[in-house]
Amino acid sequence: MVKVVAKHFVKEDKINEFIELAKNLVEATVKEEGCIEYKLFQDLKDSKILTIIEEWEDKTALDKHMDSEHFIEIVPILSSFMEKPAEMNLYKNLT
Amino acid sequence: MVKVVAKHFVKEDKINEFIELAKNLVEATVKEEGCIEYKLFQDLKDSKILTIIEEWEDKTALDKHMDSEHFIEIVPILSSFMEKPAEMNLYKNLT
Repeated sequence: MVKVVAKHFVKEDKINEFIELAKNLVEATVKEEGCIEYKLFQDLKDSKILTIIEEWEDKTALDKHMDSEHFIEIVPILSSFMEKPAEMNLYKNLT
Repeated sequence: MVKVVAKHFVKEDKINEFIELAKNLVEATVKEEGCIEYKLFQDLKDSKILTIIEEWEDKTALDKHMDSEHFIEIVPILSSFMEKPAEMNLYKNLT
């Protein structure tokens, strides 16, 4: 299992566009093989912080996701809405 | 529902102690009312990054957790193992 936390810092005036497009990414991604969880969250205090929390069966499934048509199409547009680069961490579970 | 990502940056020589103690915290916390998920993760590239990903039924359950005996006992010790303050984000789900 691989857990991913991808934290995005979005330009104030692009928050709604980011959310709408990220929802499309979520919708396509949850159908992928090996995807256990893929959800979009918004920080309660700072609405510019939008985080995707993911769980994949293994690294291969995650790599395939990053090669998928929807990822390649949507992620560069999402990146253009960001104030600074996303923080992405890949984790293993210890508990 | 409230999602929490608590990201800790632990001193190199305190990683094992942090993990052992955090496991005790996880064990006690998952028994709490309103706790949907509470798991410890370690970054695959940087073993000093230890993150707890949590899900609570509501803010009240989270507040109760932060008032619990095990939280009050264990968290200050975990903090003493950190290189810098933890990053804590509370989120709502959008998808």
